[in-house]
Amino acid sequence: MDSDYGIVRELSDLQMLRSLYQPELPPCLQGTAVRVEFGDATTAADPCDDHTISRAFPHTYGQRLAHFLRATAKVPDAQIITEHPAIRVGVVFCGRQSPGGHNVIWGLHDALKVHNKNSALLGFLGGSEGLFARKTLEITNDVLATYKNQGGYDMLGRTKDQIRTTEQVKAAMAACTTLKLDGLVIVGGVTSNTDAAQLAETFAVEKCPTKVVGVPVTLNGDLKNQFVETNVGFDTICKVNSQLISNVCTDALSAEKYYYFIRLMGRKHSHVALECTLQSHPNMVILGEEVAASKLTLFDLTKKICDAVQARAEQDKFHGVILLPEGLIESIPEVYALLKEIHSLLKQGVSVDNISVQLSPWASALFNFLPLFIRKQLLLQPESDDSAQLSQIETEKLLAHLVETEINKRSKEGTYTGKKFNAICHFFGYQARGSLPSKFDCDYAYVLGHICYHVLAAGLNGYMATVTNLKNPVNKWRCGASPISAMMTVHRYGHGAGAVSIGKPAVHPATVDLKSKAYDLLCQNSRKFLMDDVYRNPGPLQFDGAGADSKAVTLCVEDQDYMGRIKKLQEHLDKVRTIVKPGCSQDVLKVALTAMASVTDILGVMSTPGANTQFQE
Amino acid sequence: MDSDYGIVRELSDLQMLRSLYQPELPPCLQGTAVRVEFGDATTAADPCDDHTISRAFPHTYGQRLAHFLRATAKVPDAQIITEHPAIRVGVVFCGRQSPGGHNVIWGLHDALKVHNKNSALLGFLGGSEGLFARKTLEITNDVLATYKNQGGYDMLGRTKDQIRTTEQVKAAMAACTTLKLDGLVIVGGVTSNTDAAQLAETFAVEKCPTKVVGVPVTLNGDLKNQFVETNVGFDTICKVNSQLISNVCTDALSAEKYYYFIRLMGRKHSHVALECTLQSHPNMVILGEEVAASKLTLFDLTKKICDAVQARAEQDKFHGVILLPEGLIESIPEVYALLKEIHSLLKQGVSVDNISVQLSPWASALFNFLPLFIRKQLLLQPESDDSAQLSQIETEKLLAHLVETEINKRSKEGTYTGKKFNAICHFFGYQARGSLPSKFDCDYAYVLGHICYHVLAAGLNGYMATVTNLKNPVNKWRCGASPISAMMTVHRYGHGAGAVSIGKPAVHPATVDLKSKAYDLLCQNSRKFLMDDVYRNPGPLQFDGAGADSKAVTLCVEDQDYMGRIKKLQEHLDKVRTIVKPGCSQDVLKVALTAMASVTDILGVMSTPGANTQFQE
Repeated sequence: MDSDYGIVRELSDLQMLRSLYQPELPPCLQGTAVRVEFGDATTAADPCDDHTISRAFPHTYGQRLAHFLRATAKVPDAQIITEHPAIRVGVVFCGRQSPGGHNVIWGLHDALKVHNKNSALLGFLGGSEGLFARKTLEITNDVLATYKNQGGYDMLGRTKDQIRTTEQVKAAMAACTTLKLDGLVIVGGVTSNTDAAQLAETFAVEKCPTKVVGVPVTLNGDLKNQFVETNVGFDTICKVNSQLISNVCTDALSAEKYYYFIRLMGRKHSHVALECTLQSHPNMVILGEEVAASKLTLFDLTKKICDAVQARAEQDKFHGVILLPEGLIESIPEVYALLKEIHSLLKQGVSVDNISVQLSPWASALFNFLPLFIRKQLLLQPESDDSAQLSQIETEKLLAHLVETEINKRSKEGTYTGKKFNAICHFFGYQARGSLPSKFDCDYAYVLGHICYHVLAAGLNGYMATVTNLKNPVNKWRCGASPISAMMTVHRYGHGAGAVSIGKPAVHPATVDLKSKAYDLLCQNSRKFLMDDVYRNPGPLQFDGAGADSKAVTLCVEDQDYMGRIKKLQEHLDKVRTIVKPGCSQDVLKVALTAMASVTDILGVMSTPGANTQFQE
Repeated sequence: MDSDYGIVRELSDLQMLRSLYQPELPPCLQGTAVRVEFGDATTAADPCDDHTISRAFPHTYGQRLAHFLRATAKVPDAQIITEHPAIRVGVVFCGRQSPGGHNVIWGLHDALKVHNKNSALLGFLGGSEGLFARKTLEITNDVLATYKNQGGYDMLGRTKDQIRTTEQVKAAMAACTTLKLDGLVIVGGVTSNTDAAQLAETFAVEKCPTKVVGVPVTLNGDLKNQFVETNVGFDTICKVNSQLISNVCTDALSAEKYYYFIRLMGRKHSHVALECTLQSHPNMVILGEEVAASKLTLFDLTKKICDAVQARAEQDKFHGVILLPEGLIESIPEVYALLKEIHSLLKQGVSVDNISVQLSPWASALFNFLPLFIRKQLLLQPESDDSAQLSQIETEKLLAHLVETEINKRSKEGTYTGKKFNAICHFFGYQARGSLPSKFDCDYAYVLGHICYHVLAAGLNGYMATVTNLKNPVNKWRCGASPISAMMTVHRYGHGAGAVSIGKPAVHPATVDLKSKAYDLLCQNSRKFLMDDVYRNPGPLQFDGAGADSKAVTLCVEDQDYMGRIKKLQEHLDKVRTIVKPGCSQDVLKVALTAMASVTDILGVMSTPGANTQFQE
């Protein structure tokens, strides 16, 4: 079957047109002379994690930030890499397919060839399995022709998500050595990038000359941190899903007789659900993070939805659209506890048929309360990251069922007097994942591909290619790279100095920040969304004209540009040094001393281990 | 809640842009002077039905075909309607929402106002219920502003599908009389147009001056006959679904581990499934018409799919995409028989819990063989047209379940040696129904709206507005109107003269014609589709550039233009008359006589009752 990968194929008119689209490069990456400026040494976001991560990644933790600048940029310390020997690079798709992935490869290929036409790019066929088995396809312009700006991962395919076990790491290293690779580019999400960091560290230890680079590509949008604003694929997935949600909203309003319960793919956290809500304005969304923070039980959730249905019925509205992230089920405290017990029993080898009798009395009671179809789904083997098989658990049907039961009960009691409650359930995920990528994702992925080359040309190992300031036009984008280990956190029990860490350092999926502007925007509008049916239809994904250049709401409302602000800070520090040179007046020096002493005091207190817990779950 | 209908609302950028799109009119409808040419008296497609229909529709059956022509058209018999008194017209959405419905109202409004600005258009709020209750909204430019070229039926809403019972017909007539309507336009599919014809006949009998006009608007695409090539909404639905199917195909090919079973909305027949297959090239489609024609049982179907899975596994392919029309379940002979028994028991008032014990032994055995979830769904009350609640029966899950069981069995027996079979199921319907309409549907609906006005201006009753030659550009479209009763058929047992008719004449949904070019195209490609993964992605619905002007494949491969050919025939007849005038040579007359005698002989034989059974189910 591998022989089918990368074949030239017939394209539809629109696919053909898209294949001719040439993404723009930001000025810093144009031409062949790119400057690299090294910033300060990086650190983890939570000072508590510093020690643990540096012990786990002695060779790759604490490396300096890299900024890529125009050749003409006036930055004294930046260096232009002038030699571009021919290099050999391998690239592999890891984890779930995300629209835009092909463009990373295209961008990398173009950058390699423009700097040295003898450089070679090898794509591993069939994902990490292909890496282990050294199955490659040389990427050429001919191979790329029908995959430029196209969705899916079908140019190379993908299989297992991980490069983690000793055998897997050994096989990967053997492949890189045998194929004489100077670089290995790993395209994927949080898990794959954690694996990339581990691989980089192992290569450094074992003196394997291959440098490893990660690229943030995941439709879940959960690879978010100081350095990474969004992920390739998230924009497309949210646009395709928002279109479908909007269509369902229009449908609900036309017939006025159904409540649609829509579950959205996106793994543990609710980034996709939040973004789709802000794009399409359905009546309600239940974010996993809200449920976890408020410890809402299944009964609380049922009541919350029933109250909404009742409030709408009082205004003669008997339709509505409710979004649920697929990770919601794990955020409900008692269901989470139940899942933990089930997974632990499964790990002990208890057969599916015997699990229900071995559960604790409490978990058993909940289990037996749930409808049969959900019980079966909860008994599925957990995923490789220990989470439940979220895409297979029909939370939307469970909630629709519970709400229907409760509304019928209220009807009998006379507290609900509206029309019969009718629910229709949907799961939106697979039908968006293979979409043609949006212009944003085409551009972002292509630029990241270019950056991968420059990371390798600068000889860096264990870095992730990054672009910041993404909400602005491409010509304002900042290109750089950050050590992956600086994005890691360590899970632990408790807070403060006495906390006990659990598990290895990893790039953990970011939760939806309940203090963010995006969430605030949702809160401000949630009443209006619930009662007033202010449905908004962004329409199908467009590539020209209105809507073609729109970007994710959650991306645009935040003031991110962390890399830009890091640079701004450096400028302030340099300015102080320039103004307060030896020979300046006593007054100037005195003011400078007092002011800076106060700054260092404040920061000293804020950076005490345990004070910053933003990225801790 | 009605107060929310027709409100001015906030539009997204793309919606706004679309609201500014002005559909083109074919030359014959441009300006204010339109000629009407009356063709020959119409007849039903099957001569057997002639008598039954004419008895049921004495006033409205056999009326003449109407063609609308340019004022300058050189057709001697055509008349220009010069007087355009102010008229009052009501319009109502009947049946399921279909993208483009709003444009019928817009076109009708524009035509009314351009001919007499004092004419008024009243929209009934909440569908037929609004008609019975006389709840209206006057359609103005302001009301239309945010609904032009937009999906859904939310400008006016819709409720029940039917205007059929004596009470309903009386209420409709009372509404038309009270509101002093000169015309009533009914927007809907086969059922609604049958109701429109019945209403027209009743109005004629009762001397109610309101003329009734039907418009073919249904996403199912099953209102197809001599006069109607396609329906408003079908193009959009197929494009939106094809995009999603293509995305799933790309997904399947990227991960290579899932079989996707996708059920498509479209009621009894398989038009949507056929069109989507021709647009996106999934591995397999099972048309209800094929199953019915070959009398395939559930076991045959399971075997057919398993054999396909096995054949693919032998080529190392463990993924695939299989389309199923929602009507499939009723086409499987033994399931159909079971459904008939269930519905008959339900009609007798047997409670759901007691049905399984009252089934015949044979039906009971099948019922108990089926998985629990399907049993529950089969027990749902049938729809108003006596069909099962097709949208609620998860045929895709049933087949996936049966295939999985069979593949596991083959695995154990050693006849299947491939990887584990994994199925993912989808139902695509509600998420397409509210879509922004395609350019084709915008244009088609707008033109039909205009035609409705001309039908009323010509004083016609019981007609449907029609446009033919649709596969050609708008400036080649032929506009006309045909009596709805001429599109009717009568269901009967047996063939030929002795057949017994069952039920009233009605516009029945057309089946997919297994002798059509479209079906032939599918057959020619089905082996390639099955084995070679020649997936095609038409991409998301576009409104500009590549793909924006594409039309349904099933529309374009057929030589339809029935109205054009009817006119061509007329020209031939006229020509014979012109050439063979009294005074022509003996030779000419002799040849003419012989030739025409042979023509009439052939047609005489072909038109014997029972010979033409094309439109009979």
